[in-house]
Amino acid sequence: MLMHVVTFRWKPDVTPDQVAALRTTLGALPAQIPELVNYRHGPDLGVRDGNADYAVVATLRDMDALFTYLQHPDHVRAAAGPLAAMTQTRSSVQVDLG
Amino acid sequence: MLMHVVTFRWKPDVTPDQVAALRTTLGALPAQIPELVNYRHGPDLGVRDGNADYAVVATLRDMDALFTYLQHPDHVRAAAGPLAAMTQTRSSVQVDLG
Repeated sequence: MLMHVVTFRWKPDVTPDQVAALRTTLGALPAQIPELVNYRHGPDLGVRDGNADYAVVATLRDMDALFTYLQHPDHVRAAAGPLAAMTQTRSSVQVDLG
Repeated sequence: MLMHVVTFRWKPDVTPDQVAALRTTLGALPAQIPELVNYRHGPDLGVRDGNADYAVVATLRDMDALFTYLQHPDHVRAAAGPLAAMTQTRSSVQVDLG
């Protein structure tokens, strides 16, 4: 099992509506991409200074599932569309959960 | 339930032994900090360019549990000790999982 972790820091002009629309788009991915064993995401709670703005944590069975997810048209559309438009910096890690 | 997500990018001189020791230290935290409902962490798999080096994803019941964890002596020791010594940049987000 693998964990795909991404944090995003938004550009200064990102609006709450954009974040809400992104949440809906990402929220639809598990139904579209069966390789997603678990998919948790959401905006930062704003309880700690210096935090980034959004996080995605996806759990997938193996490397093949990870790349199926990353290359899936619905994920690519989200990544190349709203995420690319909104993101100033991102930090990604994939971890083997054994 | 809350998700506490952190990615770390190491300083260039960090050694595999330091990472292994950190894994052991963090691996002990769930037994030391009962507020941790779930605690997943580990080094990046190295399958994507530009990734950070390590990720921690902690699941906790609520905000009180989050701050108990963050302020717990064993967490503080890990954060102020090896993590501070190893970390070039970090990116953190807390997400409400509802």
